[in-house]
Amino acid sequence: MPNLELGEALREWASLLGDEHVSCDAATLASAGTATFASSSRVLAILRPESRDHVQQVVRIANRHRIPIYPFSTGKNWGYGSRVPPRDGVLVDLGRMNRIVAFDEQLAYVTIEPGVTQRQLYAYLQERGSKLWMDATGASPDCSVIGNTLERGFGHTPMGDHCANACGYEVVLPNGECLETGFGRFPEARTTALSRWGVGPSFDGLFSQSNLGIITRMTVWLMPAPEAFEVFVFQSDGPIAPIIEALRPLRLDGTLRGVTHIGNDYKVLSGAGPYPWAAAGGKTPLDEATMARLRRELRITKWSASGGLYGTRGQVREARSLLRRALAGKVDRLQFVGPRKLALLRRIEPAYRAMTKRTDLQRALIFIPPLLDLLQGRPTESFLGSSYWRKKMTTNTLNPDVDRCGLLWCSPVAPMRGEDVTAVMDLAREISLRHGFEPQISISLINERMTISTVALTYDRDVAGEDDRAMACYQELMRRLTEQGYPSYRLNVASMHYGNAGAEYKNVIRAMKAALDPKGILAPGRYE
Amino acid sequence: MPNLELGEALREWASLLGDEHVSCDAATLASAGTATFASSSRVLAILRPESRDHVQQVVRIANRHRIPIYPFSTGKNWGYGSRVPPRDGVLVDLGRMNRIVAFDEQLAYVTIEPGVTQRQLYAYLQERGSKLWMDATGASPDCSVIGNTLERGFGHTPMGDHCANACGYEVVLPNGECLETGFGRFPEARTTALSRWGVGPSFDGLFSQSNLGIITRMTVWLMPAPEAFEVFVFQSDGPIAPIIEALRPLRLDGTLRGVTHIGNDYKVLSGAGPYPWAAAGGKTPLDEATMARLRRELRITKWSASGGLYGTRGQVREARSLLRRALAGKVDRLQFVGPRKLALLRRIEPAYRAMTKRTDLQRALIFIPPLLDLLQGRPTESFLGSSYWRKKMTTNTLNPDVDRCGLLWCSPVAPMRGEDVTAVMDLAREISLRHGFEPQISISLINERMTISTVALTYDRDVAGEDDRAMACYQELMRRLTEQGYPSYRLNVASMHYGNAGAEYKNVIRAMKAALDPKGILAPGRYE
Repeated sequence: MPNLELGEALREWASLLGDEHVSCDAATLASAGTATFASSSRVLAILRPESRDHVQQVVRIANRHRIPIYPFSTGKNWGYGSRVPPRDGVLVDLGRMNRIVAFDEQLAYVTIEPGVTQRQLYAYLQERGSKLWMDATGASPDCSVIGNTLERGFGHTPMGDHCANACGYEVVLPNGECLETGFGRFPEARTTALSRWGVGPSFDGLFSQSNLGIITRMTVWLMPAPEAFEVFVFQSDGPIAPIIEALRPLRLDGTLRGVTHIGNDYKVLSGAGPYPWAAAGGKTPLDEATMARLRRELRITKWSASGGLYGTRGQVREARSLLRRALAGKVDRLQFVGPRKLALLRRIEPAYRAMTKRTDLQRALIFIPPLLDLLQGRPTESFLGSSYWRKKMTTNTLNPDVDRCGLLWCSPVAPMRGEDVTAVMDLAREISLRHGFEPQISISLINERMTISTVALTYDRDVAGEDDRAMACYQELMRRLTEQGYPSYRLNVASMHYGNAGAEYKNVIRAMKAALDPKGILAPGRYE
Repeated sequence: MPNLELGEALREWASLLGDEHVSCDAATLASAGTATFASSSRVLAILRPESRDHVQQVVRIANRHRIPIYPFSTGKNWGYGSRVPPRDGVLVDLGRMNRIVAFDEQLAYVTIEPGVTQRQLYAYLQERGSKLWMDATGASPDCSVIGNTLERGFGHTPMGDHCANACGYEVVLPNGECLETGFGRFPEARTTALSRWGVGPSFDGLFSQSNLGIITRMTVWLMPAPEAFEVFVFQSDGPIAPIIEALRPLRLDGTLRGVTHIGNDYKVLSGAGPYPWAAAGGKTPLDEATMARLRRELRITKWSASGGLYGTRGQVREARSLLRRALAGKVDRLQFVGPRKLALLRRIEPAYRAMTKRTDLQRALIFIPPLLDLLQGRPTESFLGSSYWRKKMTTNTLNPDVDRCGLLWCSPVAPMRGEDVTAVMDLAREISLRHGFEPQISISLINERMTISTVALTYDRDVAGEDDRAMACYQELMRRLTEQGYPSYRLNVASMHYGNAGAEYKNVIRAMKAALDPKGILAPGRYE
């Protein structure tokens, strides 16, 4: 785009938002253009609107001057691109729009703006003494709830499928108009926060993983705190297939209402501390023989799983015995952590954490306290540390983008069936190691029928050539997994083309984009 | 449209489908143009394609000649318009496309075509000795599963919210292209039947209650038959508010997984037999004083409810005691019908039915056996009879359209809160009676947070003036309920304008329609 046009647009934006809310200095832009992997698109400016009206004006100015704009909520889309746009453009930082607009304890929902973080929502519920739980992802307490939902993120509780538990979007369209989805278009409707369909075509799906509108408000459903809550953890050195087969019926029949997560050995190891340079003789990747040795030494099993049981005391007791029966003979150890053990673990955690750092023993256990948090919808920062896996540095303020942590997520979806999950594991393991990366994988039983495996490629961007090697590995993972029938549920900003399949799909996307955004100013290249 | 164009199109359609699958004779068209209320649009022809390829060709011919076409699955959209199009046009009857394309016992789904009826799907599962249950609506065993889902219909089991349990649509677009939603666009994907989002914008919502595409295939999720199943029924002569307040927490916490239905006195009476002409002194409507007398005489209570408990024996036992505790003091009688009592009821049903017809006593109980069916996902014809409420005729073959039964459904959505449901009941009761109709209402706890009240206006189309009076009543119900914050979840073919609210919504609908269907040939006027 011509600089002249950008200059004029920036003047209009500055006059709308105030100079202090339009950033153009090189350092800020470079930082916003940095993800946890190599990316080439440039950030031309950052705008920080504070209201829906601002967003509408911002969009209108962009349209007049044909400047591409890329909204983000808090920009913590780590491993998928952080704040980096898929192509050059101006970022629209929605972080100042962080109001909690409505809250209903009885009907268990909250209506929020995109800047509302997990931490903020959690604190809000605590302050009010609410009996409701939110769902949290492990990414960071500073993640936007809406941002995560629009990327179809997921968590751990019965509300873990975020898109399935949200409705009533307020959407600023590429022409600056504002659409309310569901029943929201009826001025008097009392049901906007309660229905995912409304009447007539339902638009919500159109605006997640999309570039057709900017969500400025959304209702997120919460769950009543259950009378009883218990965590189960199990380990296994056997094959994964029978475990999946054993869990599926419990997911399908509603016994397991939350999202069970199963991590492999590499995942557990990387979550508990830095790369074992000594054990690996200073080399990467950590090969399978070394991993096998470390498993023995550190008492890590091939698979470690966790999930929550939610309900009345009676329901939880029943779920416990059903789970015990289903997993008998299929896992090495199944443990239940009830409220008392839970409180104890929380008390001893700091000491335990300090201790394990020294002794490096039983790393697997270090996971439990933060998992307990997530399983109760409490945001935690504990999992962010794993992006420092191969970094030879220590820091107290985690910022993977700035610290040049390398992180790429590949997230294939597979049927909740032993053979399918095994196929994904085998492929991901072989490809990752061959490219020089540890296959750090967790399998999430996201709904009743399917799993999402999140394969993390974690590396040090300061090591020459690693960015390229990691991206090559990611590309092969994506290509091979898609070919085998396991496309990913989510894409990174450098790899949106993996969503392109089917001429008819592309035609429809193109037609809708042309209809709603004829000048193509809203997030061009995002999921298209 | 010019007759010339229609004639040419009909020749092309006949050459595509065969003459026997293009109907133009006046009697057939008049019958297809008849609903259970007054409608004015004319059916110009009926086409009966047998494959997706046929549908694509049909659409292309329609486009070339600019002839509006209206697809229907089996056309049993009783009370909302049957097969009648909202405007003049050619009907496309998808009934011949009745293949069950895929079935997965493990992952609990079936992939079907639009002509597949509830009866057919049920028989299919039975024949295979499947351990899976489908969900059924009370409309008729001959209803299309897809047709009901696309109208956002609902049933009784934990899979009762049909749209929330369907995915992987195959859609013939208005230009004749074929779009697969979700992961379907990836040729190798094994996850098309398992994910409601896929990757990138999700289109499913766009094609329900819409005129943007013709669904030729869909995956419908099933549920594993639970180890234990029990029905609860309760009656109450008290206010409805405390009942709703008592049930909401059990719906929100997952104890009540199915859709509880609560019928009022008029609903129960109309479900169990014809209008009590003698008791009413030959007059309509049945006023509240007479209804009160009949309640006493026939031992009907103001409210009668039913729902299912699903799970293991332990889970059902727990749910039973939670329900008992929650409803204590709020209902007159709470009963649980377990498998034994259930079998007994089924055995005595024919005799019982014959008996109640004679004695007219305890009509409420007649409901139980068919409800037991629906609560287990077994389609039943038992509820269709209520559309003959005011008809002075007897018939063994129920066909409300042909028999000139009057039936109009108004279906306001309200928060699952005592005061809101009370407000809807009061309004619906007052308006219906004032217009001369009995307020036959059932309240469905369709998801965790909202209710749908289906208000049936049941009358005799052969009584002069009744069509107009019923429509006037419907219009006042719609207008007043919407004004009070309770818009309907579904509209009839003569009243699509109630979906029109908000300039931005209309702009978006118009833009999408123009993008996907520039000549406006697909179901113009449907939900727009």
